Amino acid sequence: MASPDTHPSIGFYGLGIMGSRMAANLARAGFALTVATYTPGKAEAWAAEHGAAHAETPAALAAACDVLITMVVDGAQVREVLLGPEGAIHGARAGLLCVDMSTIAPADTTAIGDELAARGIRFVDAPVTGSSPKAADGTLTIMCGGDAEDVARVRPALDVMGGLVVHVGALGSGETLKVINNAMAAANASVLAEALVVASAAGLDLDAFEQVVGAGSGGSAMLGLKAGPMRAHDWTTLFKLEHMLKDVRFCLDEAASAGVPFPSADHARDLLAAGAEKGLGQADFAALLEAVEDRAGRRV
Amino acid sequence: MASPDTHPSIGFYGLGIMGSRMAANLARAGFALTVATYTPGKAEAWAAEHGAAHAETPAALAAACDVLITMVVDGAQVREVLLGPEGAIHGARAGLLCVDMSTIAPADTTAIGDELAARGIRFVDAPVTGSSPKAADGTLTIMCGGDAEDVARVRPALDVMGGLVVHVGALGSGETLKVINNAMAAANASVLAEALVVASAAGLDLDAFEQVVGAGSGGSAMLGLKAGPMRAHDWTTLFKLEHMLKDVRFCLDEAASAGVPFPSADHARDLLAAGAEKGLGQADFAALLEAVEDRAGRRV
Repeated sequence: MASPDTHPSIGFYGLGIMGSRMAANLARAGFALTVATYTPGKAEAWAAEHGAAHAETPAALAAACDVLITMVVDGAQVREVLLGPEGAIHGARAGLLCVDMSTIAPADTTAIGDELAARGIRFVDAPVTGSSPKAADGTLTIMCGGDAEDVARVRPALDVMGGLVVHVGALGSGETLKVINNAMAAANASVLAEALVVASAAGLDLDAFEQVVGAGSGGSAMLGLKAGPMRAHDWTTLFKLEHMLKDVRFCLDEAASAGVPFPSADHARDLLAAGAEKGLGQADFAALLEAVEDRAGRRV
Repeated sequence: MASPDTHPSIGFYGLGIMGSRMAANLARAGFALTVATYTPGKAEAWAAEHGAAHAETPAALAAACDVLITMVVDGAQVREVLLGPEGAIHGARAGLLCVDMSTIAPADTTAIGDELAARGIRFVDAPVTGSSPKAADGTLTIMCGGDAEDVARVRPALDVMGGLVVHVGALGSGETLKVINNAMAAANASVLAEALVVASAAGLDLDAFEQVVGAGSGGSAMLGLKAGPMRAHDWTTLFKLEHMLKDVRFCLDEAASAGVPFPSADHARDLLAAGAEKGLGQADFAALLEAVEDRAGRRV
């Protein structure tokens, strides 16, 4: 382990389900940590519990750290925290590096990066995959976009939060890979949902279907995670359908910017949008099965 | 292990790459085995090497066994072996059970089953997934369609050839599940190919892409098997594109018979057909990437 003394001091904004667990790993690893969040009083209580300092505003947070990490809900919040009236730009020390670990549109990342660069502030995107247990264990997958030097500077902190940390390319590349991964998940889930309807309509034993496909070339992470909930029509939310729809749209925006089509993701977007129109936006995205069933005129 | 004495005597027709390895496991397990195949002299040589008997025609093979297994190329061959001028029907003992382990159209399976039933001959479909190493190891996945009693009768032999043997439903269900699995593989491969083009066009590091998606929700059996060959444009054939196209079409026929759509498989069929039109029918089906690249106007 490197000595904490050689590490940059960290500011962490956002103490939600993911952020609180990620920041706890930084505190545990001995980083000099200051936290802040939108909800009054929450940062103070969290800091007392975890032996960290706290700040009242993003500007005050920026004044207390070398590296400022954001883990919030969307691009608007990232913009507010970094560039808003009480944003980090108003308290930044020389050489501040901002690291956004939220999942936002890659185009927002590059736009925010341009505004920060105009003020001499560095920016890295480092979104994560993995749910709250992996956040707690420090085994998230973290995909970074930005200059190699900046990524190297924040890597000791990322290594504490992640099991796999990769540098993907220029600023925005982490977000781009994140939304491509999610679009692939949505597309593979669409394949699964349609196949379940066909198998059910053909009278197959669906336990056998799961076993055989899971052992075979048709298998996918989605089969392992979503075949059971789909068969049970159990939409207990692990990842909201409306959030998946947003990510697939971001991915399609990136594909369009790059001048290439992504028809499988177009199809997944249509199914997710149909699910959202049915009022399933807050359900788990496995509920896209209902859109497939509506089109087939048959339930699994 | 059950004693071979309690096992039915087995006839095995078809000694190709898969069949020869599957039959060798039956011989090794002590089944009373007679083999036959289309190529003159091949069965005799194989039988001498493996301590089995051989027959010159399917009719003679049927006369020597209780259970006749076919492992051939397509439905026309299965029909010829079982119902042709020298077919099994002309030598069948009372109570013969035929077991087709080839991958053929489910509709052919049920049609052949009807003709056999008219002659008092039982029929089970039991296609396999897994390549020649799994055939050699006896670890194939085998999916059975037919009456439970018939499946139970052949199960000791199937257990010698397979690591996972499941009864899926009525006659033809094994073939239906096989072509659904393959259609899912083709659809997931289409998702992968399109995502690779997007990631490449967006300037992402493709090693990072493989690592992150492989560890994440976008992962699939196809990512593990085909991302490398796709990136290298290496179409060394493991499973021919034209065979995958055939299976996807069979799957779509079954979906249509069952009255439900399978749009993801429609899309995969279109990409495979475009690949076949480019002359890639003999290439591995990973070559569907070229159809994706043509549509995108960009190579990975």
